[in-house]
Amino acid sequence: MAEPPNLAPAPPTRPAALPAWHPPSPDARAAFVAALRPDEKGLVAAIAQAEGTGEVLMLAWMNAEAVAETLETGRVTYYSRSRRKLWRKGATSGQVQHLLDLRLDCDGDALLATVHQEGVACHTGRRSCFSWGLAGEAVAPLEPVLQDPARLYGREG
Amino acid sequence: MAEPPNLAPAPPTRPAALPAWHPPSPDARAAFVAALRPDEKGLVAAIAQAEGTGEVLMLAWMNAEAVAETLETGRVTYYSRSRRKLWRKGATSGQVQHLLDLRLDCDGDALLATVHQEGVACHTGRRSCFSWGLAGEAVAPLEPVLQDPARLYGREG
Repeated sequence: MAEPPNLAPAPPTRPAALPAWHPPSPDARAAFVAALRPDEKGLVAAIAQAEGTGEVLMLAWMNAEAVAETLETGRVTYYSRSRRKLWRKGATSGQVQHLLDLRLDCDGDALLATVHQEGVACHTGRRSCFSWGLAGEAVAPLEPVLQDPARLYGREG
Repeated sequence: MAEPPNLAPAPPTRPAALPAWHPPSPDARAAFVAALRPDEKGLVAAIAQAEGTGEVLMLAWMNAEAVAETLETGRVTYYSRSRRKLWRKGATSGQVQHLLDLRLDCDGDALLATVHQEGVACHTGRRSCFSWGLAGEAVAPLEPVLQDPARLYGREG
């Protein structure tokens, strides 16, 4: 019996123009995870920043497994608090984040990932999730929708 | 009776080269606060990013009062989870963050503040808190100490 076709397009591979990802050794990945100071839910905050432009794209969460996988694969994996499972950014939407650097903050409870963002980071189709602000007396989106959110396969991003 | 002298230097005033801060109206500030989706502790994550350079300086937390005060004063005020009170960044250390823009993310639980950072953001005397990463097999600081942390009056920053 043939497998049913996988209708989701394959996530984009790492662009040739990016530096290749050389995964840190297992010991190094373990040292990185050991330096985390997760909250009572086992999570650290993770900021994604675009290489080159410096745009802050999104803030999400990682557990130890997501951090280790991100370092191993060179693709950013978060932990979805709502779905309570690993969230391989772009696995369904194609909006992959290729990792260039991963930094830890001074108290170990937040990470900064420098990424090459395929397409858009926000499930609304905007480049960055931080696209809302005051327009006069009201909060409104201040940045354009670049991709049809219906084509991003919902929230999984 | 004379007041005892206040030995802490006055925090720096907003540099003349920056655009003046025009506080949003009380209604606009209330609309901004109403758009927040704080966590069960009443907090949202707040990222500070340096104007011009785009450096991600730190991640901390704000409650509704901190957000409203930040918008009113044009100086970034966080909420300290450890001290359980407002944390007017730079009040004791002089390492003030002058606000240029405040954005909200798509689900209202994270903020992005574009700031002019006086001096350094990190209590260790480094420009950014995100200064740690892998150096070979170990996690180490990858950025230099620019200011003596003993002169920053401890953690309050």
